[in-house]
Amino acid sequence: MFVDGLECSNFDREVFEELRAGDLGCVTVTCGFWEDALESLDRVVAWRDLVRANADLVAVATTAAEIEEIQASGRTALLLGFQNSSFLAGRIGYVELFADLGVRVAQLTYNIQNDVGASCYDPVDGGLTRFGREVVEEMNRTGMAVDLSHVGERTSLEAVEHSAVPVAVTHANPASLVPHARNKSDELLKALAARGGVLGVSGYRNISGEYAATADTWAELVARTADLIGIDHVGVGSDLGRKVVADDLRWMRQGRWTRTPQYGAGSAANPGKQPPLPWFPDTRSFPGLAEALARHGFGEKEVAAVMGGNWLRFYHEVLPKRSAKE
Amino acid sequence: MFVDGLECSNFDREVFEELRAGDLGCVTVTCGFWEDALESLDRVVAWRDLVRANADLVAVATTAAEIEEIQASGRTALLLGFQNSSFLAGRIGYVELFADLGVRVAQLTYNIQNDVGASCYDPVDGGLTRFGREVVEEMNRTGMAVDLSHVGERTSLEAVEHSAVPVAVTHANPASLVPHARNKSDELLKALAARGGVLGVSGYRNISGEYAATADTWAELVARTADLIGIDHVGVGSDLGRKVVADDLRWMRQGRWTRTPQYGAGSAANPGKQPPLPWFPDTRSFPGLAEALARHGFGEKEVAAVMGGNWLRFYHEVLPKRSAKE
Repeated sequence: MFVDGLECSNFDREVFEELRAGDLGCVTVTCGFWEDALESLDRVVAWRDLVRANADLVAVATTAAEIEEIQASGRTALLLGFQNSSFLAGRIGYVELFADLGVRVAQLTYNIQNDVGASCYDPVDGGLTRFGREVVEEMNRTGMAVDLSHVGERTSLEAVEHSAVPVAVTHANPASLVPHARNKSDELLKALAARGGVLGVSGYRNISGEYAATADTWAELVARTADLIGIDHVGVGSDLGRKVVADDLRWMRQGRWTRTPQYGAGSAANPGKQPPLPWFPDTRSFPGLAEALARHGFGEKEVAAVMGGNWLRFYHEVLPKRSAKE
Repeated sequence: MFVDGLECSNFDREVFEELRAGDLGCVTVTCGFWEDALESLDRVVAWRDLVRANADLVAVATTAAEIEEIQASGRTALLLGFQNSSFLAGRIGYVELFADLGVRVAQLTYNIQNDVGASCYDPVDGGLTRFGREVVEEMNRTGMAVDLSHVGERTSLEAVEHSAVPVAVTHANPASLVPHARNKSDELLKALAARGGVLGVSGYRNISGEYAATADTWAELVARTADLIGIDHVGVGSDLGRKVVADDLRWMRQGRWTRTPQYGAGSAANPGKQPPLPWFPDTRSFPGLAEALARHGFGEKEVAAVMGGNWLRFYHEVLPKRSAKE
């Protein structure tokens, strides 16, 4: 089964059809970046309506078993995720409520310090806050996966340590291979792997550098990452942003917290939306990723682990056993 | 099984213990009156925490089967209810979200016209709004019971007509027996009964008049109501407000919509909290209600129907089959 650990596309029927054409079994979608609790509920409603209207192509999964059932039915399982904890509005009790509503992945911070911890762009990272510790515990209890992709180093290390179950970096790369604030230290990645976590390797240009050149250079990035943390802890996290437009990018980068242009993983010299990767314009190219890994010399089992098996194992360990599906 | 169709008590362990002492199998609790969506989520969180802390006495039921299971376990099943539709914040999608969070009863309006319809205190009742029609449909679909207790006449008639499943008046009396804006016309009650609905007869002083004198006069009110709409459509809706204090009463009556004192079912001459009924100070008196009905001449099956069986049948028809319980 092919699994994409994180996408931030503006999904519609065409993009869902691309998931099917790429034989995707499961994708974590981004329901929000800066949305508050009410706006996040609105996003959940919009996602439910969108999924209902395309029920022949996709379904929301709330357990690992459901991911497998949905894939077996010839559809793509969607995990509802938020790239921030702003949906909690500072309420510990909302972890459980949003979990009940089907949310299964949440990044502790997006691009700025919040009440849970620091982001990877903050100059000072005081670590996981007292609230943040409770949030991690409650996410563990309710089966919501902790995502550290945009989270700061110390906050991430403390989250790995504090979590009772494996945690994820759904979309980032090793900073020792591609130096970038969004990428992760060897120390963090090794701690994450030691506790059973998974890193979704990303071909997103801004954080994969020269490895973004071809499917084969991306396979090289996967190989070097596997050398670093073990192949059982490497998955795909494309960070694909199909149909994301300039206004979306501005919302992602600036939210409502600043009037100053922010560049996220880009820079003032490289401010715009990155052009699609020629070898990965959309998820129809997923089989090509598997082929590139095979060309690189990965065995059949290794390819299957990286392309989805490792994420599926992670979901079996972290997601609740009980369904929240209708 | 004893069932109370509506209470607005400030529940704590002592009040839960009273439910057990009265052998209550199921009670609909009031989670809110004027709360908006976020405040309503907060109320759901507070209710979950309260129930968890008293799990030896009570549990939240989300299906009729769960009501029976909880009662069989020696605890009281609670149905989470709102006495207003303000928790929707104008969003049709929130019916489903709050249903997923376990809310099972909602009154369409409290004491003032809203986007769904008119209250029983509004001089003009334009009927169920276009949004209101969709809300009723969505409540039907998601298994949330429609409560018309404080709802205006025309809005109520249209809700009875529009609903695909039976609806309830959880706490009111026939206006032909006790004239009061909060009580219900024979036309409405007969329409409700014809479609399988249930009226929760209330001993609340302001709306039961002279029938509030003793358990036996209350039994007389039940008997006359049964003569009017059939005994299969009569239940108990005590409207009990244990530990409700003056500030609570002010919130119930004025919310945030007025600076002018409002008296709800009271009046300027009778503005305060009603003293407890000597024969029904709290739910420990439920067995006494059954005894009064028996003294009045009701047979065993009739007593069982009024004291809980009718509500249970209604819940079997209206609540979802699928559990939302943890």
